[in-house]
Amino acid sequence: MYLEAALTIITLTTDFGTRDGYVGAMKGVILSRTTSVQLVDLAHHVPAHDIVAGAYCLHQAVDCFPAGTIHLAVVDPGVGSAARAPVIIDTGRYLFVGPDNGLFSLVTSPSHPAYAISRQPFVRTQVSNTFHGRDIFAAAAGALAAGADPSDAGPQVALKGRLSDFAPVADAAHAGSDSREMMATVIYIDTFGNLITDVPAGQLPAKPRFRVAGRIIERLSKTFADVDAGVLLAYIGSAGTLEIAVREQSAAAVLGLGRGTVVEILPS
Amino acid sequence: MYLEAALTIITLTTDFGTRDGYVGAMKGVILSRTTSVQLVDLAHHVPAHDIVAGAYCLHQAVDCFPAGTIHLAVVDPGVGSAARAPVIIDTGRYLFVGPDNGLFSLVTSPSHPAYAISRQPFVRTQVSNTFHGRDIFAAAAGALAAGADPSDAGPQVALKGRLSDFAPVADAAHAGSDSREMMATVIYIDTFGNLITDVPAGQLPAKPRFRVAGRIIERLSKTFADVDAGVLLAYIGSAGTLEIAVREQSAAAVLGLGRGTVVEILPS
Amino acid sequence: MYLEAALTIITLTTDFGTRDGYVGAMKGVILSRTTSVQLVDLAHHVPAHDIVAGAYCLHQAVDCFPAGTIHLAVVDPGVGSAARAPVIIDTGRYLFVGPDNGLFSLVTSPSHPAYAISRQPFVRTQVSNTFHGRDIFAAAAGALAAGADPSDAGPQVALKGRLSDFAPVADAAHAGSDSREMMATVIYIDTFGNLITDVPAGQLPAKPRFRVAGRIIERLSKTFADVDAGVLLAYIGSAGTLEIAVREQSAAAVLGLGRGTVVEILPS
Repeated sequence: MYLEAALTIITLTTDFGTRDGYVGAMKGVILSRTTSVQLVDLAHHVPAHDIVAGAYCLHQAVDCFPAGTIHLAVVDPGVGSAARAPVIIDTGRYLFVGPDNGLFSLVTSPSHPAYAISRQPFVRTQVSNTFHGRDIFAAAAGALAAGADPSDAGPQVALKGRLSDFAPVADAAHAGSDSREMMATVIYIDTFGNLITDVPAGQLPAKPRFRVAGRIIERLSKTFADVDAGVLLAYIGSAGTLEIAVREQSAAAVLGLGRGTVVEILPS
Repeated sequence: MYLEAALTIITLTTDFGTRDGYVGAMKGVILSRTTSVQLVDLAHHVPAHDIVAGAYCLHQAVDCFPAGTIHLAVVDPGVGSAARAPVIIDTGRYLFVGPDNGLFSLVTSPSHPAYAISRQPFVRTQVSNTFHGRDIFAAAAGALAAGADPSDAGPQVALKGRLSDFAPVADAAHAGSDSREMMATVIYIDTFGNLITDVPAGQLPAKPRFRVAGRIIERLSKTFADVDAGVLLAYIGSAGTLEIAVREQSAAAVLGLGRGTVVEILPS
Repeated sequence: MYLEAALTIITLTTDFGTRDGYVGAMKGVILSRTTSVQLVDLAHHVPAHDIVAGAYCLHQAVDCFPAGTIHLAVVDPGVGSAARAPVIIDTGRYLFVGPDNGLFSLVTSPSHPAYAISRQPFVRTQVSNTFHGRDIFAAAAGALAAGADPSDAGPQVALKGRLSDFAPVADAAHAGSDSREMMATVIYIDTFGNLITDVPAGQLPAKPRFRVAGRIIERLSKTFADVDAGVLLAYIGSAGTLEIAVREQSAAAVLGLGRGTVVEILPS
């Protein structure tokens, strides 16, 4: 249908919150370039300056979107510095627009073509030093939605920003003498206080048990409703990895745990 | 006009917050089925797992939408359990999509036809145990917007989930010896800390007085501006029922009150 | 293109939060009048009742939008009182819809034509005393987007609401004996805790130094990345005025400062 062809999807992910109108300014810049867009707020309460959280947020959401979607994301503590370039990354399926600081590590690979954003109309005529979300990234996303070619944004560049936080830990110091023991690391804590780890379902042993914060979890549950409210459980989360939760409470608050916590995976 | 016919409205109401990208993932699934939609965020900071708050939120908002709107809502502490079915409810005016756990109690009736959601394309090819918002409810809403018939989602079912929290309380223990005394119950506390009760304007006596948290309110005001900043007042709120507020402050915080609080309605 | 002509942009700015569905109700009323709109959430977590913060939010965002955009804003502690009229203000470039309480001070001038909103379809058939966002402002914005003329909303009126908080302070009591010393006032604190002042870049002396909360900042930085994490800096923000921040932290929290704080600008 005409509309399906005409409305390009742009998703927006930021740590700007919804209090100051910063996201609104970005949308205005996009809409000044084209109104034939479907603007989709993906998340705007990524914890401030937390690139890892932003990367995880993109990771769990972008695959759901149809091919051709433009994903604009700004978690950018290095804004205005020469150290990190503003880039467009073309994965073939999606275009990603934002800072080259690792934010797109989990949804792109270093082999994808990337272009530094340096030319109009991919940048506004005046560019501030502190708000590239508005002056570069929104302008670039709008230009792309209006039909501009990514390679016209500027020279092709090699991506520098990569995160290492998501690799599974094999920590001998924690492993003890039993070589069959595995470690999972909490890589993200969501709004509900659920602890999301980096170990995929397929790597778990049959009938695993778990130890976290000195407590033993005796089995892998299927879903929250398998236990009573207030009870600790382990399960495979919606991103396909091991998660730890307390039903209808915040596991992070109840256990006093944060990102980086190690969960021991014990054989039965 | 063409566009008015083409863009189906889908509202989204969740307790997912806007930090993790869960809402973004849902929107991606919807847009993968059709991009001819007007996506409307109704509320995403419903208190976690609070079905009553979600039900109230829908109650005060959905009637404003035009006929044909699809209302997707997910406040779902029982996700993945057999106890609550994923359903589409057809009220004639609207379609509601979400868990059958009482969330739709205030905007549907048990006599409305409801269908369990069990067949593709109303569910994704892979369904997780913990994120039915993405894998079932968003897929179903997208399928409906793309023109699928609700009855194709699965077998017709009788709705089980009903909330009883919104019925006016007639509590003899609180009523005292004066039989003319009425009770209102605080059923919802909004962002401003206003206390919203269950007693409609039409049930109040002429010239009522009120007692709450040991304080007397001498009259029913028309609006906040009838009193000075910081003063306690009673008035008819935008949902048509008695509310208690402190002008430009949070009545809930000032009085230390929560949902379930009883407000006595005294004759003049 | 057809779509660019057909979809009128309406931005929404409120202090309603995203918990109760109040914003959702407003969108429903708009969409009941026309679905040929591009609804853009500008900000919904403006601090409750804080007209100055709302005015600043509009100030920094609205200029980014294309001509013809309708900006709907509701921060309205005086809702329902005769003291403040609901108005449409026509700046030629934009239409603003909301309460005449100063909220639009920074984006309109008293010479712009303004119309009191009093007639259908600019108001709903039933108007509550406490939710003009839904019953008047959303209805008016929807009517405008559907093609109604602003002057049909009601009689032309002179705007009353103006804020004085944004004029630069020249406070003799703070100025000391050195007449070359300037003062900047913190007029807004954003989500990141950055302190935004009222002094434009052009009014700063060459090589300025700054004193705030007893601390000296020795130079004007270009951007956050010019200093290490945790270090206090002064820079020109995205709105073109002097700002004070602590890199990757909240300056407001670290320094214990709020709006109205004076920043001394010292010659080098």
